[in-house]
Amino acid sequence: NSKLKIFSLNSNRPLAEEIAKEVGVELGKCSVKHFSDGEIQINIEESIRGCDVFIVQSTSGPVNENLMELLIMVDAVKRASARTVNVVLPYYGYARQDRKARAREPITAKLVANLLETAGATRAIVLDLHAPQIQGFFDILMDHLMGVPLLSDHFKAKGFNSEEIVIVSPDHGGVTRARKMADRLKAPIAIIDKRRPRPNVAEVMNIVGSVDGKVAILIDDIIDTAGTITIGAEALVKAGAKEVYACCTHPVLSGPAIERIDNSVIKELVITNSIQLPEEKKSPKIKQLSVATLLADAIVRIYENKSVSTLFD
Amino acid sequence: NSKLKIFSLNSNRPLAEEIAKEVGVELGKCSVKHFSDGEIQINIEESIRGCDVFIVQSTSGPVNENLMELLIMVDAVKRASARTVNVVLPYYGYARQDRKARAREPITAKLVANLLETAGATRAIVLDLHAPQIQGFFDILMDHLMGVPLLSDHFKAKGFNSEEIVIVSPDHGGVTRARKMADRLKAPIAIIDKRRPRPNVAEVMNIVGSVDGKVAILIDDIIDTAGTITIGAEALVKAGAKEVYACCTHPVLSGPAIERIDNSVIKELVITNSIQLPEEKKSPKIKQLSVATLLADAIVRIYENKSVSTLFD
Ligand SMILES: Nc1ncnc2c1ncn2[C@@H]1O[C@H](COP(=O)(O)O)[C@@H](O)[C@H]1O
Ligand SMILES: Nc1ncnc2c1ncn2[C@@H]1O[C@H](COP(=O)(O)O)[C@@H](O)[C@H]1O
Repeated sequence: NSKLKIFSLNSNRPLAEEIAKEVGVELGKCSVKHFSDGEIQINIEESIRGCDVFIVQSTSGPVNENLMELLIMVDAVKRASARTVNVVLPYYGYARQDRKARAREPITAKLVANLLETAGATRAIVLDLHAPQIQGFFDILMDHLMGVPLLSDHFKAKGFNSEEIVIVSPDHGGVTRARKMADRLKAPIAIIDKRRPRPNVAEVMNIVGSVDGKVAILIDDIIDTAGTITIGAEALVKAGAKEVYACCTHPVLSGPAIERIDNSVIKELVITNSIQLPEEKKSPKIKQLSVATLLADAIVRIYENKSVSTLFD
Repeated sequence: NSKLKIFSLNSNRPLAEEIAKEVGVELGKCSVKHFSDGEIQINIEESIRGCDVFIVQSTSGPVNENLMELLIMVDAVKRASARTVNVVLPYYGYARQDRKARAREPITAKLVANLLETAGATRAIVLDLHAPQIQGFFDILMDHLMGVPLLSDHFKAKGFNSEEIVIVSPDHGGVTRARKMADRLKAPIAIIDKRRPRPNVAEVMNIVGSVDGKVAILIDDIIDTAGTITIGAEALVKAGAKEVYACCTHPVLSGPAIERIDNSVIKELVITNSIQLPEEKKSPKIKQLSVATLLADAIVRIYENKSVSTLFD
């Protein structure tokens, strides 16, 4: 009978520890360090022969460092005769480079899927991919978990009345996600509809749907520099929204993000711990929810060969 | 008829520029930048459809950044319909992780070869691999060039008399390399033979071969923290060497390397530009030779389908 082992790399140890606790195992022993010249040195310090190994690593920033750590760990686990090599990616970096938006661009999201497979991963467990099509970039087994229920439950607990809220997609690409949240909260949706009337003319921000007098909840998958979400929030207030909340699964929060959020009309930003927040990115407006139970549950169900409750997209 | 294109990434632009000049072409236009969150953004800014593309990149430190740049560029070049995608790696990082030295270690040198192939490289051109066996890690075409002739010619030009010099390998692994240099300089060899008589007893440094009254030239492939080479140089002086020179192909020079070299008995350290030296690593004792002609010649010969003069090992 094979054993379940969970290893953490360096990007998000607190989450990996929470997951292991939920699953009821100790984190596997392994040392992940650097040689003097900066090359990654990995040594697995316990036998994993015949085991089902789960490696928890978000490929958040420093993305190239975290991705190489993962690839090298997968190689080491494979060569140590694990039965299965499962990569748990709470945040899948490079997901936005999922198509050629211009000529002669790479499709790095696909490259990363191929690299994981080449290194020896037999399965990937991911959360809220930027585009659900990225599922098809993998030829290995893959489970795509959704953060919407967790985020929705947070707002449900606030006891809002269905009639007083509206779920808002900050752009055209996120409408399906907003619809999912709206279903859970039995609320209507609205869309921030940006368009440029003519080249070199400022964008017009139009709101499709009614937000007047309502509590608007903006939902996105990734908040990066927070430009879209803070400008969107302002447009909602101008259109008569009473209060604006925002939420996302992946708090990339790079560059001016924290400053923008702090200075915005957003009342509360709800995020998950798919990406660990360094101290300097913490803000009183930000509320972080844990995806540990969601991931732990998926790990146990995969290990026990039961179906994983994925929300298909 | 296909066209030859050379692109440089960010690790060693001065060398790539020299190579392009020797070949007689302009470097290809491409932008290699970072998004706000640190993800690499590459865009190739000229058509390369049907071309033979050579990408120059050393996977020296920051190794994971430089390696990911290369992999993403290979993906972009492949998707832009290049005829062949040739990766020129003056320095091949992770080469020392070429076997399991302990249980449950990765074999990262093999992983990197697989990643390059997966990304879409059709050929690799490399210089002085840490172990010649790494050639076999590649299933794609590969040319393995040698730095020994260049380093030997430098010492030949000093006009030493064959009888007054001895070529020294700093360890058992480097004897073949020392022999090659000795052949070119018609000199004898010596070996620094370190061994630990019993566990937990200091290493004994024994010199096999005669160095008394001679000019000793230490040769290695990589000088990293410079411990081996500076301690070896001292042992040579103790054994009667008149002067000690050192040389290597790849100047990794991490941690205390420069300080150790500056304070050592080494008279001159000869290196190549396979790795670009940052200003703070420059030292009056260090003399840098260029591998541009060697690499340019290989690129032209590969492009013209002529044999590349490789020294087999
Ligand atoms: N890390 C990143 N930060 C900002 N933009 C990115 C990043 N990665 C890819 N992109 C660009 O974002 C666009 C895709 O985002 P989206 O339209 O939201 O799917 C493409 O044009 C990409 O070139
Ligand atoms: N970047 C590095 N710096 C120092 N040692 C390394 C590095 N990469 C691998 N090694 C170790 O160096 C040994 C191989 O070096 P060598 O015996 O000279 O072939 C192995 O034990 C590796 O674990």
